[in-house]
Amino acid sequence: MTINRFILNKQKLIDKKLIELVEELEAPSLLKEAIEYAIKAGGKRLRPILLMSTYEGFSTELKKATHPAVALELIHTYSLIHDDLPAMDDDDLRRGQPTLHRQFDEATAILVGDGLLTYAFQLISSSPFLEAEEKVYVIQQLSQASGVNGMVGGQYLDLKAENEEIEEHELSTIHIKKTGALIQAAIKIGAYLGGATPPQIESLQTFGYYLGLTFQVQDDLLDVEGDSNELGKLTGSDLARNKSTYPKLLGLQGAKDQKNQYMDKAKEAYLSSNVDQPRLLELINVFGNRSN
Amino acid sequence: MTINRFILNKQKLIDKKLIELVEELEAPSLLKEAIEYAIKAGGKRLRPILLMSTYEGFSTELKKATHPAVALELIHTYSLIHDDLPAMDDDDLRRGQPTLHRQFDEATAILVGDGLLTYAFQLISSSPFLEAEEKVYVIQQLSQASGVNGMVGGQYLDLKAENEEIEEHELSTIHIKKTGALIQAAIKIGAYLGGATPPQIESLQTFGYYLGLTFQVQDDLLDVEGDSNELGKLTGSDLARNKSTYPKLLGLQGAKDQKNQYMDKAKEAYLSSNVDQPRLLELINVFGNRSN
Repeated sequence: MTINRFILNKQKLIDKKLIELVEELEAPSLLKEAIEYAIKAGGKRLRPILLMSTYEGFSTELKKATHPAVALELIHTYSLIHDDLPAMDDDDLRRGQPTLHRQFDEATAILVGDGLLTYAFQLISSSPFLEAEEKVYVIQQLSQASGVNGMVGGQYLDLKAENEEIEEHELSTIHIKKTGALIQAAIKIGAYLGGATPPQIESLQTFGYYLGLTFQVQDDLLDVEGDSNELGKLTGSDLARNKSTYPKLLGLQGAKDQKNQYMDKAKEAYLSSNVDQPRLLELINVFGNRSN
Repeated sequence: MTINRFILNKQKLIDKKLIELVEELEAPSLLKEAIEYAIKAGGKRLRPILLMSTYEGFSTELKKATHPAVALELIHTYSLIHDDLPAMDDDDLRRGQPTLHRQFDEATAILVGDGLLTYAFQLISSSPFLEAEEKVYVIQQLSQASGVNGMVGGQYLDLKAENEEIEEHELSTIHIKKTGALIQAAIKIGAYLGGATPPQIESLQTFGYYLGLTFQVQDDLLDVEGDSNELGKLTGSDLARNKSTYPKLLGLQGAKDQKNQYMDKAKEAYLSSNVDQPRLLELINVFGNRSN
């Protein structure tokens, strides 16, 4: 199976589960409509794919990975909804559709975000497929990665860095928190639930570290060179907001070279983990060369 | 010890623990400053007091209740920060001080809220004082109570009911979700961790149900009859926002009668639980007759 077909199959599976689990959710009907709008807008589902692919490097009992994969995507979705708000990045389009606060209103967008984040933890704590110890591990990883020393902290630093001159090491700190932490959590959770040894988890965490940076450099490059139709959002927004990006700091070619270095380091870390899951190697290329 | 002294002692203990645990949190320094502002603004700490008092009806090993009590207050604090936002209740004052988005900015307020909610789950999942099964129970209760079928759903319905004519049963549904669910969770968590039997938990849940309604009717009454200095926020805001409230639906005397009925039902439920914790009885009066 090609990697593209593999990804497509996983996306379908994740979409189906996400929609199923959100449909189970009891909520006031209009609020639920807004939640479904957010979920059904689609997305690349790269984080849950990464979690499941890592898990499958160790185990074939697929059920265990499903709820954590969905919870991860719920957290990612909430973060996009809050990041898009007028007080934050003030974006009108997401995945080719009006952002949630544009389609509904700001209050609804804030509450849908809060609700999705909360549901992630409800889903894990109530999962029939996980032991108590596993639930605790997953919740620990997700909450650390998405909290004030992870994703929320990264978004804060990112906002505060607008119109500021920052250096490359500060830029990578922002992205390790904002994007990298959740990518690393995806991989650690997949590895742990699959039964990886602690040294394997450590190598794979390093793999996730460089994969996260690869993802972000490509994100910056797409904002310069990407096709806004394919991206489902406008390009050039980093420049418009005067954001520090890799192309701005290193030049276009410099950013591409940096990305290739990160991809090499991710490959190295994968190889040192002694996991036999070539999909992870292929995913480095997907992260580094994606067009949306 | 009088109930007021009892509450004061508990408040001190909770404030100390809250501040300690927030100081441990790693976060970008300005974001952390905003978090500390939110936590140090104080508060009645009624939910954690309720959790700890219920727990103490069953057990004396106090450590177990501390992290859940703090997590509960983190969730309550996050909900106030988000509710105060311009897109929601648009409040300028909270506990006599500028609301977080007034003191800092809107983006910071959104992210502090997100961060506190996330930290609640991180704190429980990493607590050294709880077994895995206990962590899972606490996280289940907190996430259900604060999610889209609980607090977040209640806030949504409350916002949508502005300028609408609603009936008493709709008003109580809003408040059971918005305020009652977390109050019930406080009691259930305290009882469960202390070792209550399932029938005892059930009776205490009913106790929490009526306690939550008592709290809310008094909240509505204070917005009409309260002292804004003592409350630390302006009175009359419900009227200004054309919100449905108990005094509006039932008249001032009608609302007071309703409150007394709820207090009687809470007392009844407490008695049927066969728990020997008279502080819970005293807390009914505190909830029903508080002046802030």
